[in-house]
Amino acid sequence: MKTLKVIKIGGNIIDDEQVLNHFLERFSKIEGPKILVHGGGKLATKLANKMGVEVKMTNGRRITDADTLDIITMVYAGKINKNIIAKLQTKQCNAIGFSGADGNTIVSERRPIKDVDFGFVGDVLKVNTNTLEVLLNAGVTPVFCAITHDENGQLLNTNADTIASELAIGFANIFKTELYYCFEKNGVLQNVSDDNSVIEHINSENYKALINDGIIADGMLPKLNNCFHAINHNVDKVCIGKPEMLFKSNIKYTTIQG
Amino acid sequence: MKTLKVIKIGGNIIDDEQVLNHFLERFSKIEGPKILVHGGGKLATKLANKMGVEVKMTNGRRITDADTLDIITMVYAGKINKNIIAKLQTKQCNAIGFSGADGNTIVSERRPIKDVDFGFVGDVLKVNTNTLEVLLNAGVTPVFCAITHDENGQLLNTNADTIASELAIGFANIFKTELYYCFEKNGVLQNVSDDNSVIEHINSENYKALINDGIIADGMLPKLNNCFHAINHNVDKVCIGKPEMLFKSNIKYTTIQG
Repeated sequence: MKTLKVIKIGGNIIDDEQVLNHFLERFSKIEGPKILVHGGGKLATKLANKMGVEVKMTNGRRITDADTLDIITMVYAGKINKNIIAKLQTKQCNAIGFSGADGNTIVSERRPIKDVDFGFVGDVLKVNTNTLEVLLNAGVTPVFCAITHDENGQLLNTNADTIASELAIGFANIFKTELYYCFEKNGVLQNVSDDNSVIEHINSENYKALINDGIIADGMLPKLNNCFHAINHNVDKVCIGKPEMLFKSNIKYTTIQG
Repeated sequence: MKTLKVIKIGGNIIDDEQVLNHFLERFSKIEGPKILVHGGGKLATKLANKMGVEVKMTNGRRITDADTLDIITMVYAGKINKNIIAKLQTKQCNAIGFSGADGNTIVSERRPIKDVDFGFVGDVLKVNTNTLEVLLNAGVTPVFCAITHDENGQLLNTNADTIASELAIGFANIFKTELYYCFEKNGVLQNVSDDNSVIEHINSENYKALINDGIIADGMLPKLNNCFHAINHNVDKVCIGKPEMLFKSNIKYTTIQG
């Protein structure tokens, strides 16, 4: 069985052209089938400001109204995705950009309204691997932006971490799948201000303790939920850390264990 | 040999959601391999106005500066393309959006500066059919926006008519290819104000006379040059008219003959 690497990058890589270029240079050299998933970075907020579209929040969480969805579609699927694709093509990496609507690859449902109406935000229901598998076997690298669709014509803003974990899970019976969350820290840290305090292994046992002790909190909680969701659904390896974890052998990072 | 239909639609279809929906409904029912190519319509200009990006013209022709290229990439490859894809998926048409950078499908060069520097505008050099052929044979419908790349990381704004003709030519040795330019008129008209005065056949002979008589002029000249370029490079059928020419048998339209 071949190994498929699903790699998610966030704003710290996307927002800096030099950093992005350096990452893509190394990404392009990864052998075997691979999928890149990117978030949106600060560009969407910048465009919203330029266009006078207000960033709407409820209980501290962002709401995706119709104007915001338009902006996200333009920035994520348009500007960021196409520029990544053009850059990868210069590095002999034959990439094709995807939203979940393309090839009907990722189907989601609009998040049900409980306390908060998040607007056009999608929770993933299903990954269709067949078209992607044809492309991966033809040596093509799919590059996903954080947009899915509901099969009724509605695009939906979808968490990029979730897209990455669902893709890895979707392929787990076809490939040996590995999921890498690249971000600005060396991994999950024991002490948030000490980048050397990497917790190298997290399993369901010490996870609870880390939450209880407040070491894993806020934005790290949904990320780790995605990690456990993947490792509990046959993904072979789930890692969090700096992109260097993909390219160097002497780098510390966090590995999630079931 | 299977028949591949390459169909280009313009602003008159894209700018009106009902018209677009009706077109996509019928497009999705076309059997056999097909490729859709879309221009940008009025949305790019609207976004430029909202963002305060000036539309720059030289000698009456639009210049694509860096800001304009960003807008075009966001609107064409983002908003318009992804909404078309999401709509086609509701109609059991498994579509994937493409710029020329995706799959390295269309390579262009920045238009050389003679009298005018058109900015980031590309003239097509090469179409790579292999990845597209894999997808077409898997029943996938590629949907192209009017953006290409130069293989050096630069996206380039490229005429949608040209993209359609170059795709048709590129596939002419793999499929029997047919090229359809859909626009707001019934075809090339003898009398521009009479939609019933369709010139049903244009060949290289009467073409010259039609130019000399001023019947073919302005924007129709490059469109017809694309038509002749295609028919002279092994494209089997080249037609100009309303979209109905694709779906009804009793409709007049213009056919280009070599």
